Amino acid sequence: MIYLTRRERFSAAHRMFRQDWTDEKNLEVFGKCSNPKWHGHNYVLWVTVRGEPSDDHGFVMNATTLKEIILDKVVNKLDHRNMNLEVDFMSGKIATTENLAVAIWNELSPEIEKHAAKLHCVKIEETENNFIEYYG
Amino acid sequence: MIYLTRRERFSAAHRMFRQDWTDEKNLEVFGKCSNPKWHGHNYVLWVTVRGEPSDDHGFVMNATTLKEIILDKVVNKLDHRNMNLEVDFMSGKIATTENLAVAIWNELSPEIEKHAAKLHCVKIEETENNFIEYYG
Amino acid sequence: MIYLTRRERFSAAHRMFRQDWTDEKNLEVFGKCSNPKWHGHNYVLWVTVRGEPSDDHGFVMNATTLKEIILDKVVNKLDHRNMNLEVDFMSGKIATTENLAVAIWNELSPEIEKHAAKLHCVKIEETENNFIEYYG
Amino acid sequence: MIYLTRRERFSAAHRMFRQDWTDEKNLEVFGKCSNPKWHGHNYVLWVTVRGEPSDDHGFVMNATTLKEIILDKVVNKLDHRNMNLEVDFMSGKIATTENLAVAIWNELSPEIEKHAAKLHCVKIEETENNFIEYYG
Amino acid sequence: MIYLTRRERFSAAHRMFRQDWTDEKNLEVFGKCSNPKWHGHNYVLWVTVRGEPSDDHGFVMNATTLKEIILDKVVNKLDHRNMNLEVDFMSGKIATTENLAVAIWNELSPEIEKHAAKLHCVKIEETENNFIEYYG
Amino acid sequence: MIYLTRRERFSAAHRMFRQDWTDEKNLEVFGKCSNPKWHGHNYVLWVTVRGEPSDDHGFVMNATTLKEIILDKVVNKLDHRNMNLEVDFMSGKIATTENLAVAIWNELSPEIEKHAAKLHCVKIEETENNFIEYYG
Repeated sequence: MIYLTRRERFSAAHRMFRQDWTDEKNLEVFGKCSNPKWHGHNYVLWVTVRGEPSDDHGFVMNATTLKEIILDKVVNKLDHRNMNLEVDFMSGKIATTENLAVAIWNELSPEIEKHAAKLHCVKIEETENNFIEYYG
Repeated sequence: MIYLTRRERFSAAHRMFRQDWTDEKNLEVFGKCSNPKWHGHNYVLWVTVRGEPSDDHGFVMNATTLKEIILDKVVNKLDHRNMNLEVDFMSGKIATTENLAVAIWNELSPEIEKHAAKLHCVKIEETENNFIEYYG
Repeated sequence: MIYLTRRERFSAAHRMFRQDWTDEKNLEVFGKCSNPKWHGHNYVLWVTVRGEPSDDHGFVMNATTLKEIILDKVVNKLDHRNMNLEVDFMSGKIATTENLAVAIWNELSPEIEKHAAKLHCVKIEETENNFIEYYG
Repeated sequence: MIYLTRRERFSAAHRMFRQDWTDEKNLEVFGKCSNPKWHGHNYVLWVTVRGEPSDDHGFVMNATTLKEIILDKVVNKLDHRNMNLEVDFMSGKIATTENLAVAIWNELSPEIEKHAAKLHCVKIEETENNFIEYYG
Repeated sequence: MIYLTRRERFSAAHRMFRQDWTDEKNLEVFGKCSNPKWHGHNYVLWVTVRGEPSDDHGFVMNATTLKEIILDKVVNKLDHRNMNLEVDFMSGKIATTENLAVAIWNELSPEIEKHAAKLHCVKIEETENNFIEYYG
Repeated sequence: MIYLTRRERFSAAHRMFRQDWTDEKNLEVFGKCSNPKWHGHNYVLWVTVRGEPSDDHGFVMNATTLKEIILDKVVNKLDHRNMNLEVDFMSGKIATTENLAVAIWNELSPEIEKHAAKLHCVKIEETENNFIEYYG
């Protein structure tokens, strides 16, 4: 079993809040991340797939194919977008990196399984001091 | 002459656009950076000051003092904020990194000159592939 | 299950040696790291916790709370300190990164369990070419 | 159980192709990586070993010993070399990072087991956006 | 005056040698970089342009335009290529990073001057421990 | 004119203080950096030299020669040492990064001038957030 990881990046605006909470309650729980006028990040995304290297070509999965799936299903929908308002797979969810990682997993997993590999991990760095990993 | 550089970071939302242009014209000139629903970045800021090391303590300028000036005048106003809507020194300006660098220079320069050093350079990285430098 | 990692940094002096060994024996086993006049590093610490994201707020654990625990229990005791002489939880231990990782785990684990998450990994980078991981 | 990782680097030329395929077929499967006149990379290699810290000296394994094994068995054979033409342990294999990781594992594992530790992971970064991990 | 820098990357094979020298002489002067069977690197290229921010749009120069010039004139010619054998602007030159920086300057400068900015610096990193800068 | 930069690293203990000041005064001016029991850093050093590329071999200066000068004159004296107590060229000086940069310049400049290049800049990073540059 070999693990292949591809790194991609996107820049997005977001806000962490619940509509059923007051601004004060949102501020108490989410801190400055609840700012109603938005803020944003340069997110870094690592997608890891696992499989056996093919006898035919020696890859677990073609890295260009993996890149295209990530761009098509995730990065092109998030980059230079507002995560709360414009991204279908985050609609109705609190825009935490935890929830984002699970949503990205759900977008990518069925596409990757079409290519004789399995999705192993979605890792998202929000700042250089914080990152989230989800293994399904 | 010695140059001392301090790195700080802030995460902000912004949009590049001109109110006197149509959305189409803004999209043509600013591309996806003109998205009306905002996007954001993890900005990295390097502030360089120059001076002679003091015979008394061997510093060009106390790095903690420099840090406090940068936080007070710049980072605390920008971090987790909307650069277009919430930052006094960017009001009425197009939110390009170029304009941001000049505005940050104007905020910092008089404060630093109170401390026997001179501001030498403001450098701002917007993404890992783009940065701006301004030398006054 | 989601994994959240927080990065913190500290700069400390240390020396690897055993008091019951001669300087020659210490030099033979620990090399230049046994220098009796000390040396030091910028240590980078990654603390990973695991748990289910809360339905209430979408976090595994509040990252600010995690940061405060790490600063209070670990970083503030180590930063700009001599690891051999001034850090209670390293007292009587050889100051290897391996022993430091286990000691930090023991400091952090009970505090993190008060917050509905579990400590998963303590990772410490001593130089850009060496790091240690401990999973309990 | 503690995990110790050592990072080393090497710069090598390579080409991905099969001699029993036409240039067109190689181009179709391997893309620009099949260029018959070679290209190259700065590869970054992380070798992780696991074990119990010794009561005697507090190390899983002496990091200098680990470094010397990696240089002797891997880096000195690959650095500033053509991976397809000059590296014994890659002879007859397609020069994918997947195959390289398995080959490096086979070179390192018996040497490391002479030192009371076990090889845990070989990780190779080919570019800042792609890496491979192999756990045996 | 504002300075805008764009980072791009390419992976190439090369060899440092002079055809009018023996292999022994090439090895003596260029060391392992003279290997006749090639080696390669992940080169990182920073291109800095300078100018006044436009009153119209606030840019020194559109960063996307700068990117396209760098890709068209430099990166697409070098990436996954043999610098000695396949790159027109390096033909007949010793493939040092010094000579590469000057050649890239000559490729880029006339194109950038069509856009109301001037080329200021070409910086090329060959490994994480070595880089070259050329200011024309 | 071309600029060549070589990066090297060293780990050292130090303390900022003046013997003619009380511990209280030292603490007031130098903060936690005045800790009498020492602390330390992973220092990163960039040495930049300038010159014309040789018609003979295309280098400003052989990078291996530059590396050997830096190791011999600077790194081997500082690495795993106490900067205040064990480094001849820092003797009697306050161990600020400013003073260290000037001292390293004085060590390197005469050696580099023996090789048809001139020392241009000594840059020292003490932590990821602070660095010093000295141009002679």
